[in-house]
Amino acid sequence: MGVSTEGQAGDRAQNQAEDQMTEFDEAIAVRRCGDGRFQVRFDERFAIVAQGGSVPAAMNGGVMIAMVLRAVLDGSPHPHPVATSAHFLRVPRLEPAEVEVTWLKQGRTAATARAALVQDGQTVLDTTVTTGIVPEGPQANGDLTWTGEPPRLPPIEECVNLGPWRGTVGPDGTAGYAAHVDLRMDPATTGWRRGDPAGVPEMRGYFGLREERDPDAYMLALAVDSLPPVVFGLGAAGWAPTVELTWYMRAVPVPGPLQVAARCRHVGGGWFDEEAEVWDAAGQLVAQSRQLARVGRSSREPKERS
Amino acid sequence: MGVSTEGQAGDRAQNQAEDQMTEFDEAIAVRRCGDGRFQVRFDERFAIVAQGGSVPAAMNGGVMIAMVLRAVLDGSPHPHPVATSAHFLRVPRLEPAEVEVTWLKQGRTAATARAALVQDGQTVLDTTVTTGIVPEGPQANGDLTWTGEPPRLPPIEECVNLGPWRGTVGPDGTAGYAAHVDLRMDPATTGWRRGDPAGVPEMRGYFGLREERDPDAYMLALAVDSLPPVVFGLGAAGWAPTVELTWYMRAVPVPGPLQVAARCRHVGGGWFDEEAEVWDAAGQLVAQSRQLARVGRSSREPKERS
Repeated sequence: MGVSTEGQAGDRAQNQAEDQMTEFDEAIAVRRCGDGRFQVRFDERFAIVAQGGSVPAAMNGGVMIAMVLRAVLDGSPHPHPVATSAHFLRVPRLEPAEVEVTWLKQGRTAATARAALVQDGQTVLDTTVTTGIVPEGPQANGDLTWTGEPPRLPPIEECVNLGPWRGTVGPDGTAGYAAHVDLRMDPATTGWRRGDPAGVPEMRGYFGLREERDPDAYMLALAVDSLPPVVFGLGAAGWAPTVELTWYMRAVPVPGPLQVAARCRHVGGGWFDEEAEVWDAAGQLVAQSRQLARVGRSSREPKERS
Repeated sequence: MGVSTEGQAGDRAQNQAEDQMTEFDEAIAVRRCGDGRFQVRFDERFAIVAQGGSVPAAMNGGVMIAMVLRAVLDGSPHPHPVATSAHFLRVPRLEPAEVEVTWLKQGRTAATARAALVQDGQTVLDTTVTTGIVPEGPQANGDLTWTGEPPRLPPIEECVNLGPWRGTVGPDGTAGYAAHVDLRMDPATTGWRRGDPAGVPEMRGYFGLREERDPDAYMLALAVDSLPPVVFGLGAAGWAPTVELTWYMRAVPVPGPLQVAARCRHVGGGWFDEEAEVWDAAGQLVAQSRQLARVGRSSREPKERS
């Protein structure tokens, strides 16, 4: 679904897929155009809209990773993106781009590909993806299983509906990413919105899309970086560009809202880390991420990554 | 240091470096042999020695990452490997190999290279490295700084001297990696050695080399994966091959023993995650890592990664 191919069979598959497609699936669709090469277009409905102007200025990083994963999974012998590491190099323009996939190994348990999102000959996002199989439903007897404490969120009806939030809807009403996701934040982590940050770099909330769509690997790629930057809890503001993000898929999520909890361990020298966990409605730990990002320069304008 | 070049200047640099070289620096030395290409050899002194045989069977992953970083930093405009993500594809043989470095961006704040460790035309280890500058000593006024709670370890003299440990010295006395590192474990995390695992997937200890050498980025690459697998705390045993490991350098370490604390959040479907933090003797958080690995099959023999 969402991968179209050249030729008649491909056209049929594409038409069928587009009939069923959600906006999110349209935004992350890829079209094969050669051996390991896929055309993509950045969808302004999932762009980060700059507050100062009406022009969408940057793509949401999770959407870009999801696009790359569409291309990788198209040629993978295994169904799940078990480990995805991504280095963000440049802010793309909302123009056509390409995903280039090179398989380095296709093994019985795991397969690994390098995949780059390229625009005008320059790498925007460089990833390595290892695919495999993660559990779906109850686990086989005899397998070692263990899980740490889940995050504690208040009931969803007591949470703060965050979007579309300031800085994500342009003055002309153009709504990007924030208008397409449904984020309900734990009020203990939203004091920064009224100038009263909690003093700890933590964010917690429920995540879903505003349209009907069950969570899967692509939504997890979005969810792991869906919360406001944890440093907002320390009073920082502004665009906090991700430099590197690695995420692991740990289980196939069940339908229902996802719970996302993020924390930070250290801020210094202009860098901060952010670790997020995603739990599904059945209480499974379904994804983990860690990213290294730059502390924002108190500007709400996306800046060129440097 | 440790990077030699072709030609006269390079030979001089190499001779000088070899005079001062520790065994660890010898093990991670690279020799430039072309544009972005570096010859390396795997040093059996840092190999993982199989218990069943006298032949060293696998290289320590941290040593391989350190080798790759030597080659990357040789061409980097910035001094520190801020974010290194590594996918482990194959177990190398102790024969010559090459590091291939391709720079994707060299920016003012950050530069990014892909670097692969290749043997016989096959990628053994595939990495992407973003370099930059991390703090050394006290931080500038005005920068946002924040750090979470440090790990709590008993004094080093109350810790368990782990090496050379079982499975790492061959029957003929061949001593690999474990004979070259000095690991003093928190006794609360060593019950598994006497068949009484703690029941939680945690490991903590002091890490250094047995030879005199101050910690730096290369030692941090070793330190982040220096402890026994966290799943030993749950009763698992055997070789637990790393599939992916990402680590961040957060500050330049001061001389002295490093403290390493590792935990796990989830074990399932044959996969487990392991997150480690490295703190230096001055109480700075100097490195963070997370890896995804396979649960061992109750064998102490290294297996081909699959």
